[in-house]
Amino acid sequence: MTMDLTFLGTGSAYPSPHRGASALVLRTDGECWLFDCGEGTQTQLMKSQLRAGRITKVFISHLHGDHLFGLPGLLCTVSLNTSSESQQDLNCVDIYGPRGLRHFLRVTLGITGSQLLFPYAVHELEPTPDQSPEEGKLNPEMTAERGPLHPQEQPGRTISLDVSSDTYLLFEDQKFVVKAFRLFHRIPSFGFCIQERDRPGRLNTELLKELGLKPGPLYGRLKAGESVTLESGRVVQPSEVLEEAIPGRKVCILGDCSSVLGEGPQRLCSGADILVHEATLGNEHREKAVDHGHSTPEMAAAVARACCARRLVLNHFSQRYKPSAMVKEGDEDHVSELKRQAEEALQGTGVEVILAEDFLTLQISLRRSR
Amino acid sequence: MTMDLTFLGTGSAYPSPHRGASALVLRTDGECWLFDCGEGTQTQLMKSQLRAGRITKVFISHLHGDHLFGLPGLLCTVSLNTSSESQQDLNCVDIYGPRGLRHFLRVTLGITGSQLLFPYAVHELEPTPDQSPEEGKLNPEMTAERGPLHPQEQPGRTISLDVSSDTYLLFEDQKFVVKAFRLFHRIPSFGFCIQERDRPGRLNTELLKELGLKPGPLYGRLKAGESVTLESGRVVQPSEVLEEAIPGRKVCILGDCSSVLGEGPQRLCSGADILVHEATLGNEHREKAVDHGHSTPEMAAAVARACCARRLVLNHFSQRYKPSAMVKEGDEDHVSELKRQAEEALQGTGVEVILAEDFLTLQISLRRSR
Ligand SMILES: [Zn+2]
Ligand SMILES: [Zn+2]
Ligand SMILES: [Zn+2]
Ligand SMILES: [Zn+2]
Repeated sequence: MTMDLTFLGTGSAYPSPHRGASALVLRTDGECWLFDCGEGTQTQLMKSQLRAGRITKVFISHLHGDHLFGLPGLLCTVSLNTSSESQQDLNCVDIYGPRGLRHFLRVTLGITGSQLLFPYAVHELEPTPDQSPEEGKLNPEMTAERGPLHPQEQPGRTISLDVSSDTYLLFEDQKFVVKAFRLFHRIPSFGFCIQERDRPGRLNTELLKELGLKPGPLYGRLKAGESVTLESGRVVQPSEVLEEAIPGRKVCILGDCSSVLGEGPQRLCSGADILVHEATLGNEHREKAVDHGHSTPEMAAAVARACCARRLVLNHFSQRYKPSAMVKEGDEDHVSELKRQAEEALQGTGVEVILAEDFLTLQISLRRSR
Repeated sequence: MTMDLTFLGTGSAYPSPHRGASALVLRTDGECWLFDCGEGTQTQLMKSQLRAGRITKVFISHLHGDHLFGLPGLLCTVSLNTSSESQQDLNCVDIYGPRGLRHFLRVTLGITGSQLLFPYAVHELEPTPDQSPEEGKLNPEMTAERGPLHPQEQPGRTISLDVSSDTYLLFEDQKFVVKAFRLFHRIPSFGFCIQERDRPGRLNTELLKELGLKPGPLYGRLKAGESVTLESGRVVQPSEVLEEAIPGRKVCILGDCSSVLGEGPQRLCSGADILVHEATLGNEHREKAVDHGHSTPEMAAAVARACCARRLVLNHFSQRYKPSAMVKEGDEDHVSELKRQAEEALQGTGVEVILAEDFLTLQISLRRSR
């Protein structure tokens, strides 16, 4: 199963012609999960190789406009593209994000008379008081739910912090476990950890033949982890005939933050194949970055190091940093300097540092072993 | 005083990489008035020659997303660009649009924690029941005003139809009278008429000298329309010494519609220097266009003809019509065909037909006489 990550917008604060506002897509087997949706995401999506109609889940890290203002329009356009598509597109779109998101969508879709051809549900994460300064807390008056649901809205869940693990369980199915964790920012922000489940290793068919087992339903039972009793009475354990399990991939995508809250996230993200972290400003602007709830490359590197991530992707650059291809001689702010700063902080760890750019796609390959 | 009109988005339904969502800017003496603000307008503005910081008034024709979803982000970005600008930028931004707009902005700016460096006020137009089919009427529950104003929000006016003139008076000052009028669309929609005031003609200085009047305050009084008594007792009337008045320009910008309601708009827009009208689909799709509350070139031409407009600009094209420069051989839908259809309907009238394109700027020159 292929898995890749495409950056649709890598700029902070607002979209510009050279960097879109925050959005990225994790694609697995043709299904697209969207992380954040700044203004202009639908146009960036059209310019990319991805298909808007395939977006089945949306995750919003926090409610700042540069991560959210594109969502109502994206849903409307996905719906317009849905009309001629298959039934499959009419599955419910699940949307995860902080408390307030449900009301935001209900009002923006409602006042504009937007009708969708598919249902949607907003599952809200309940922030804790320590995720932002006092002035960043949403007035409960602002999100008190009133009025009827949007005609295409299905009731969503409210998800609270699981105190023992310091994480939020968003959902789990046969392929994935997806959790969120708390970040500190000017307003409550979240990171997401997408953990693919391990898959059983291949069956050793040589050995099975020696044991006298022919291909058939018993193979499936062994692969599913059940033991099998031969006619001879001999019990075959799965571990005897299965090669090493194929470890699931782990992708961690953090929203805007100046720090990660609690110890849980580090355990959760441990050994991440890829960790996407913001680096809004260079190390030399650390004070300003932290004042605004943001990180520097050094701070992003510290998180990657603590999690033993394999690859660190720097993202969410101040619009002062032009994409590498656009930098001209004499320009003061080089995005390559941000990469250098993170690499310096990660010296000797073997963590690879990558600069996100609009339309960059990163493959996430299966590993043979941990 | 120069006056020009710049199209930032000329596509219908959603923004695409080749046509932005609806937005255009009327510029006079460096002040910019924005008409509609679809998603991506702020990026289109950055790509244009205009400056976002100069937007002092915003007019929203109707609450469909392709005319509105860019407004919260635009306000935030104008604010970010304001910090280093002069005091002048801190004037209140006046925003005009249908009932519901105030709540939309309060919720979108409020939930995203967006703080602006300038105040804003939303002046709402009260639609009448005949502006849309029953299902297009906003549930009053949806726009009932609750909760406190946004911290930067100033109380706005509620503007009702003036039944005698069939128009809405938005504001008037020394230079302009701006009115709105009713359109029929899937949801209530409005057109705007910007009427520049006539200016007194030049003073005939030759004649004034003959009368023994030297340059000074009396010249100003004559120009302001007051009579002046000479030492000799002779009374000089302004009409004796003023050349013909310079007629003010008239710009009419219509939102989405399949028809104009009432007789007032035709009188109001009579003799428009420029009339911007949607033509979403070609004449051959008239039924579909009207079903969706839209117009064809022939329908747009009929409005221009009834108003005796000088120039008709076709706008708001279905995304199936690529910009002229992008049309390839074999393409079925030619935007030039829309122009031809309007020209055919206007044969013999002398009305000039223009196709709007993203980033097209049209000068609106002063006329010598009516
Ligand atoms: Zn951000
Ligand atoms: Zn943020
Ligand atoms: Zn429209
Ligand atoms: Zn419309």
